[in-house]
Amino acid sequence: MNKTTEEPSATDDREACVVGLNPGYPPIERGTGTFNPLALQKLLDGDHADIRNLIKQVISQFPYYHGTDVAEYRKLVLQWTRRVADTGMGRIFMSRAVGGEENLPRFMAAFETLAFHDLSLVIKVGVQFGLFAGSIQQLGTSYHHHKYLPDAASARLLGCFAMTEIAHGSNVQRLETTASYDRENDCFVLHTPTFSAGKSYIGSAAQDGKVAVVFAQLNVDGQNHGVHAFVVPIRDAEGRPLPGVTIQDNGLKMGLNGVDNGGIWFEHVRVPRVEMLNRFATVTKDGQYQTEIQSKHARFFAMIGTLLGGRISIATSANCGAKSALTISIRYGARRRQFGPPRSSQETLVLDYPAHQRRLFPLLANVFALDFALKHLVEQTEKIRPEESRPLETLAAGLKALTTWNATQVIQTCRETCGGEGYLAVNRLAALKADTDVYTTFEGDNTVLMQLVAKNLLTEFNEKLKGMRPSQMTAFMVNRALTTVVRRNPTIVLNTFDAHLQDVKFQLGMLRFRESSLLMRGGQRFRYLTLKKNLDPFSAFSRMQRELLDLSRAHIDRVVLQQFAKTVEAVTDQSLRIALKRLCDLFALSQMEINRAWFLENGALRAVTSRAITRMVDELCLQIRQDAVHYVDAFGIPDSCLAAPIAL
Amino acid sequence: MNKTTEEPSATDDREACVVGLNPGYPPIERGTGTFNPLALQKLLDGDHADIRNLIKQVISQFPYYHGTDVAEYRKLVLQWTRRVADTGMGRIFMSRAVGGEENLPRFMAAFETLAFHDLSLVIKVGVQFGLFAGSIQQLGTSYHHHKYLPDAASARLLGCFAMTEIAHGSNVQRLETTASYDRENDCFVLHTPTFSAGKSYIGSAAQDGKVAVVFAQLNVDGQNHGVHAFVVPIRDAEGRPLPGVTIQDNGLKMGLNGVDNGGIWFEHVRVPRVEMLNRFATVTKDGQYQTEIQSKHARFFAMIGTLLGGRISIATSANCGAKSALTISIRYGARRRQFGPPRSSQETLVLDYPAHQRRLFPLLANVFALDFALKHLVEQTEKIRPEESRPLETLAAGLKALTTWNATQVIQTCRETCGGEGYLAVNRLAALKADTDVYTTFEGDNTVLMQLVAKNLLTEFNEKLKGMRPSQMTAFMVNRALTTVVRRNPTIVLNTFDAHLQDVKFQLGMLRFRESSLLMRGGQRFRYLTLKKNLDPFSAFSRMQRELLDLSRAHIDRVVLQQFAKTVEAVTDQSLRIALKRLCDLFALSQMEINRAWFLENGALRAVTSRAITRMVDELCLQIRQDAVHYVDAFGIPDSCLAAPIAL
Repeated sequence: MNKTTEEPSATDDREACVVGLNPGYPPIERGTGTFNPLALQKLLDGDHADIRNLIKQVISQFPYYHGTDVAEYRKLVLQWTRRVADTGMGRIFMSRAVGGEENLPRFMAAFETLAFHDLSLVIKVGVQFGLFAGSIQQLGTSYHHHKYLPDAASARLLGCFAMTEIAHGSNVQRLETTASYDRENDCFVLHTPTFSAGKSYIGSAAQDGKVAVVFAQLNVDGQNHGVHAFVVPIRDAEGRPLPGVTIQDNGLKMGLNGVDNGGIWFEHVRVPRVEMLNRFATVTKDGQYQTEIQSKHARFFAMIGTLLGGRISIATSANCGAKSALTISIRYGARRRQFGPPRSSQETLVLDYPAHQRRLFPLLANVFALDFALKHLVEQTEKIRPEESRPLETLAAGLKALTTWNATQVIQTCRETCGGEGYLAVNRLAALKADTDVYTTFEGDNTVLMQLVAKNLLTEFNEKLKGMRPSQMTAFMVNRALTTVVRRNPTIVLNTFDAHLQDVKFQLGMLRFRESSLLMRGGQRFRYLTLKKNLDPFSAFSRMQRELLDLSRAHIDRVVLQQFAKTVEAVTDQSLRIALKRLCDLFALSQMEINRAWFLENGALRAVTSRAITRMVDELCLQIRQDAVHYVDAFGIPDSCLAAPIAL
Repeated sequence: MNKTTEEPSATDDREACVVGLNPGYPPIERGTGTFNPLALQKLLDGDHADIRNLIKQVISQFPYYHGTDVAEYRKLVLQWTRRVADTGMGRIFMSRAVGGEENLPRFMAAFETLAFHDLSLVIKVGVQFGLFAGSIQQLGTSYHHHKYLPDAASARLLGCFAMTEIAHGSNVQRLETTASYDRENDCFVLHTPTFSAGKSYIGSAAQDGKVAVVFAQLNVDGQNHGVHAFVVPIRDAEGRPLPGVTIQDNGLKMGLNGVDNGGIWFEHVRVPRVEMLNRFATVTKDGQYQTEIQSKHARFFAMIGTLLGGRISIATSANCGAKSALTISIRYGARRRQFGPPRSSQETLVLDYPAHQRRLFPLLANVFALDFALKHLVEQTEKIRPEESRPLETLAAGLKALTTWNATQVIQTCRETCGGEGYLAVNRLAALKADTDVYTTFEGDNTVLMQLVAKNLLTEFNEKLKGMRPSQMTAFMVNRALTTVVRRNPTIVLNTFDAHLQDVKFQLGMLRFRESSLLMRGGQRFRYLTLKKNLDPFSAFSRMQRELLDLSRAHIDRVVLQQFAKTVEAVTDQSLRIALKRLCDLFALSQMEINRAWFLENGALRAVTSRAITRMVDELCLQIRQDAVHYVDAFGIPDSCLAAPIAL
């Protein structure tokens, strides 16, 4: 493409083109601020600041690609991936048997930091380490670990994670690709029965992948045992598809064009029996299917458990994309002036307009809230055993959905609040938007994930209620937040004092009230639809979709606020704690404001309190204004990564 | 770029790549439907179906560009632009004196239809005909009309509209570019005093524009007369920038890369005195400034009046982009199956999930509602005289903001509801998203426009109230919807009968109630802040921003519903009227649902009614499901324009 479009309006170009004119933007007006941004960055960096800094050093050496040639872009991203592999990052989560550290949180911290740079790199690395190597680590046994993990970690062997099919994305249980055991040849035959059973959107499939972890229906002697995973070579050393393997490039995408996504079709492709990832189930030479997990359902969830880490990584990297966007928009808002009082020498900084603050600051609070909640989730994943992982899967699914939806909204809002400048590729919001857009869809469609959250909550709830008499049920509910907050003290709904609205007990109580009310009603409705109306669970859940999505949202909001409040409490630095509490209050109260119709409908708020909450959100935005630039500085994004001229 | 990425997963490619497999998608399940889509299309096409069909024929011959080479893309868009010019479209709105038809609605219909195709073409044509030629038509006099319009209409002369500057987008009154009268040489000297006074984001500036209509501060003998427009040559016949003119390419953008946006800086560039567009004001040879509009303020609004047509065109083309996206997503939802009842042979169509309907159908209703409101606006522009245009400018500003914000939300939602397929460039949602994203910013930033709406409403309101005694004020308000709907009949807020919720009197009454309450409170607050608190109007308005934006929204929502209801009433075809009434009800009730917190806070709804509205929205979505594909078929988008394989 032509040169001028490759070098857009970076200030140095401008200088070159208008001699004698003073180029560039007015200074960013940071103001003094009330706290030390470095102290906040320390809190955000957590235990693994060292690996975060190492990754920042590495990505700071990768200049962004400003061209539009997809082939060139892919080449560059592959080079970057290899250089990231050279840091040893890929080994961090792997088992010690193959030289790994078995330290998932540390890997997550490294991965999250990558997301301050090009997101194609993030996804390429995620496919290689998180999905490809990760599934071998989690679903395979010693043979697979030793055969594949070292080369996967060094990126000498590039691999794919071939789960999704054209006709089946969310519904993995109905994948159509088959793996039939061939006793004579002691191998499995991988086959794609129809066109739409082809694997699709598979990262590294179009060009670089040599092998793929393929998820397929295992058939032994015509009996189906459900979805299992197999390591299948797809290309030879020269990069040609192997016999029986058809590969097609997914072509140009909205974003992430540095990743070579493609489709894969198998025509009776044979792989040795030992290439089945057999940690949870195995097939013996004589065709015996053996597993320690008897329930087909439980086995399925063990097989796709590998998605847990993927969802957490997607959420953390989406949140980093949101951090970059907010840093760009808030810094620009602190230097861009437009309109102003009559006869004033200077126009007003756009960040000083209440409407501008209202658009950006609640989203800023969300990003901090989600950051702390995700840290909590990562810590938990270390502690629990697989068989107890259901609650974590619920939380991971919910946080993935909320964080990626929030990132989409944040980046969209930041683009709009940067006006025309935000539309120029050089200011990076275009790439952030395009690259993160698919986050709401992949690793589980958000709407499907939110329903999963609700189902898990209802299942757990119904187990608790099983066998309870109505009176016990009531007693059970009476002990929940709903009543402790509202019923026992009716005046609370009329209390509009600031101190009250900023009391975390009140805030958490309200969110708990919403959650437990929706949970109780959901449970009752589900029992009614299934027992009285004789609907099967699927049809009952479908009928309840709107309520279920509200329930999931209410549950995750409550958990997020809880973690945010915990984090604030633990801060010893007085000025920092006050600054964080402001964001925590803004998060809690803006969530209540968003849902105030529900609270009003359910008698937990009266008009006077509801209006007071809206005024308090205005007030908090005004207070946060003075520290706005310092909050985003605390994200600690290197200028080389931020890159946007309007923000430097 | 490499071939594979230029030809993504179009079904024909797929066929080629997997021999013996049946490629493509399952059929779109249209269902019988309750009305005739052609009857609805006739209604949407209105008076100018012939020009719409002509434009459809033309654009159907332009195959989309699937590459990423910006230079190539720009060349193609310029070719297309010339072929559109060959239809004579450019002359439609011009004065008869130069062979025009002086038929703005007809021009708008043609322009709107272009938006079913590549949006870079739409903007390139909009710059050439709407902004460049349009401003000469509106701000110039006979000399300019004859000298420029014929060549502008034929695209022999390509021009720019150079208003926006780097430092001043929304605040046009503070543009920094100067045009100083040089009596000796009987010319104006155009000059860019600082770097940030450079014109920016100017369409056709980077490459194709030969002349520009430049907006600059007019100075005569050191006296400033405010912003005026001048026709300034910027390139020679070979396309080289003229002496004193510095041009810089804006570079790669999020979208619209077929348009060559650029920046322009002038260093003491001279243009003959006659090149000032002097319909509203002129400078005589001896340096007398003459105008019939004495108020500098009024003169300014006359100068930028040319933006009115631009805003309407932006809104209509944004709504067309939304139509394309909805057609793609709804058709795909009627063929895509995922999950389903246990042991069912077929999975469920995603369009049959209530959550899916909830995401898409209220947006579908918005698109129809906005379409009818925009048609009303276009009709009005024909009827009124410039000096009465204030109310139309208010409506145009508000509809531009609402329509473009709605388009952003629609296209985002359609992308997400198409999952991974929606992320592939071949399915066109990526381009629709990227190209329309800037619509919320240009031709007036939406937030700024919404404040303009509120200011105009408050000004009008205060003029009405001027001199009224408090008692009269109350009487004035008592006659407004607020009371007529609610106070006089308190039971209304408790009435949950379907017939009542679907009664347009109730719906309009509620929206009027919201509008007039916000208007009254806004007026009172403004008087309080200015009279009691002695704030200047600017500071008072800034302080009230949130309330002002609510007021504008409430006003536009009410106008839109009014026009939608009018349209429904006028339909004689019984089945069509029922089908349209459903959409109208969904629009009205989903607006009330969105704002139900406000209605609850203000006693216009009780919890029971509020919940009934939510249930009714669910119910309407369910009813609309059966006709969903027929509604979008009625948009009449040629398959060649829609192009997305998932929707054909």
